[in-house]
Amino acid sequence: MKFTVDRSLFINKLNDVLKAVSSRASIPILTGIKLDLDENRLLLTGSDTDISIEAAIPTKTSEGEKNADLIFFSAGSVVVNAHFFSEIVKKLPNTTFDFEVKEGLQIQIVSGDADYTINGLDASSYPRLPEISDEASFSVRGKTLQDLINATVFAVSTQDSRPALTGVNFTFAQDHIKAVATDSHRLSQRTMATEDGPASEVSMILPGKNLQDLAQIIGESDPELKIFLGDSQVMFKIDSLNFYTRLLEGVYPDVDRLLPASSTTHVQFDIADLSSTLSRASLVTHANRNNAVQMKLDVANGQVTVSGNSPEIGKVEEKVGFANLDGRDLSISFNPDYMQAALRAARSVADAVKINFTEPLRPFTVVPAKEGVEFVQLITPIRTF
Amino acid sequence: MKFTVDRSLFINKLNDVLKAVSSRASIPILTGIKLDLDENRLLLTGSDTDISIEAAIPTKTSEGEKNADLIFFSAGSVVVNAHFFSEIVKKLPNTTFDFEVKEGLQIQIVSGDADYTINGLDASSYPRLPEISDEASFSVRGKTLQDLINATVFAVSTQDSRPALTGVNFTFAQDHIKAVATDSHRLSQRTMATEDGPASEVSMILPGKNLQDLAQIIGESDPELKIFLGDSQVMFKIDSLNFYTRLLEGVYPDVDRLLPASSTTHVQFDIADLSSTLSRASLVTHANRNNAVQMKLDVANGQVTVSGNSPEIGKVEEKVGFANLDGRDLSISFNPDYMQAALRAARSVADAVKINFTEPLRPFTVVPAKEGVEFVQLITPIRTF
Repeated sequence: MKFTVDRSLFINKLNDVLKAVSSRASIPILTGIKLDLDENRLLLTGSDTDISIEAAIPTKTSEGEKNADLIFFSAGSVVVNAHFFSEIVKKLPNTTFDFEVKEGLQIQIVSGDADYTINGLDASSYPRLPEISDEASFSVRGKTLQDLINATVFAVSTQDSRPALTGVNFTFAQDHIKAVATDSHRLSQRTMATEDGPASEVSMILPGKNLQDLAQIIGESDPELKIFLGDSQVMFKIDSLNFYTRLLEGVYPDVDRLLPASSTTHVQFDIADLSSTLSRASLVTHANRNNAVQMKLDVANGQVTVSGNSPEIGKVEEKVGFANLDGRDLSISFNPDYMQAALRAARSVADAVKINFTEPLRPFTVVPAKEGVEFVQLITPIRTF
Repeated sequence: MKFTVDRSLFINKLNDVLKAVSSRASIPILTGIKLDLDENRLLLTGSDTDISIEAAIPTKTSEGEKNADLIFFSAGSVVVNAHFFSEIVKKLPNTTFDFEVKEGLQIQIVSGDADYTINGLDASSYPRLPEISDEASFSVRGKTLQDLINATVFAVSTQDSRPALTGVNFTFAQDHIKAVATDSHRLSQRTMATEDGPASEVSMILPGKNLQDLAQIIGESDPELKIFLGDSQVMFKIDSLNFYTRLLEGVYPDVDRLLPASSTTHVQFDIADLSSTLSRASLVTHANRNNAVQMKLDVANGQVTVSGNSPEIGKVEEKVGFANLDGRDLSISFNPDYMQAALRAARSVADAVKINFTEPLRPFTVVPAKEGVEFVQLITPIRTF
């Protein structure tokens, strides 16, 4: 196995694959990265069994010409220690490097005057990735999937007692995708339009942590993704990169019945204003075990006050600007961190949110103040008496 | 006690004082900051008993006019929790805030619509700072002191077995200052010219950690410092800020006799080149308990090679560019981290270093390749056989 490759191109692919490699891998060989070279492509593979990532560098350009950035000399496979190998490649002096597997899995890496010989591992002991049929596939825009992940993933549960809640429930239909997450204290649900969805609805629960990795890999561009569904795994194909994640088992709760049908007090806030008021109030409430701020909506006097209280530190009270306050007077307590997370998510869509309350102890909804967006968040208040 | 102050001015002073406050203070009140206000100034004090910092904001400008940034209403003293108070002040909405101590040490802080009431502590239970006579004082430029600290402090010992070695030994003379630090594996000594030094030499050992704080406080500008020497403490006066540190007891070893009088192999390196070669070699050697790179100087063939070897990872070998190689052939092993630290320190003075070797197991010197600079570093090689 021998090739010469452009270092910055290789580092890009390596960084993608490294997202799947854990330094505390259950199987020692998974602390490594597998390199497979044939006449068509160099394939990098990383896996922690929870997610697996493959990234390919082709030896030919799309026009069929030789790729100047990857020169093929001889085929083969080897596994390298991910940590040391990536550190070495990142510090090499030249814009390219030569990689050659010698006797006894010794790997020689040469770049400029630097000449490394590092220990390789046998590629045949690296676990096989799941085989997923390329039949049941459909497409989605990278940006759409990323928006759906960012709008929901922060609300997944971090507790393992109900595994399905540690994931986001995606429902892919022909012309729309619905994503929902809840940790039973708060909920976030967003629906977006799509084209080329599956002919019949496909529902799956994807682990929250893995979706964060996927959102990062999608990055700033808006690539076309293809989704391939297996029995217990799903594969996302993004250009020359394959991202595999396991699916969470179990039935996702029917959340539509949790959304209140009516409300009695309504108010609109500028997201930046409410967020900075809450950040000041939570300086005080974070000292308490029961992290709750109080919001008082005085409709007759046209005044909204946020306050926090901690026996240890003291108290804070602040009037906050608002618009369109109507309905019944209300005093309600909630976790400011849940509200901040809801505001951060809504901010990607609008500068203001509408909040719809019913009773002091009934969940309330937070929606972006923008027409035509299907995005609703639900927060359960805190009982403070 | 009541005042109104410009928030960004106050935050500047607060940040200086916070450097002396530890969240794990041995005496609970030292997790606080003391505020003392009289008609002349607001004084902020922080201390962890190892260092103490006072920062003053005057109520009058140097022309005797009222300072618009600090409005005095009534005198008094109080202690506030450093962590919460600084978080609150940094998040207040307005450019100024009002501070007033009310009944029962309750402190009201108002800025814009935000209204905090936080718990204060009795200032009379805050420890007194050491009293240092303002007689025995002399001056030094901030930049000079900072350069001396940065040239030496990294070489202090981190082991408590010989407390004096955890400090930098400063000798202040009429026209020069000498600073030296050693952990007995490497040594760094720098001498710089000064004006207005003490009439008779003053020697002191200052704790390394505290000097790092002092260098940071001196900052980018080049203020005039006054140094006041007490029995077990020293005070550095920088504009309106007083920095107190304890002195280390004990006799500092006579290091001049450690510096080799002659050498047999000499070579000069570009600092950036040698540093990047060493960073590649140490990727391999860091995996070993015995972190040593080998340098081979082949005078006849005009070649210098750096190599590293680790049974776990592999090996690396690299030729490195040099100038002015002469003397005897030599093969020597040393800790690359010590050399990197020496190169970083030398880089503030020159782009190249001269290294003077004697025997493979005798200490060698590293000096900046620049005339007129008194700066010598000593590194003890490692026995690898």
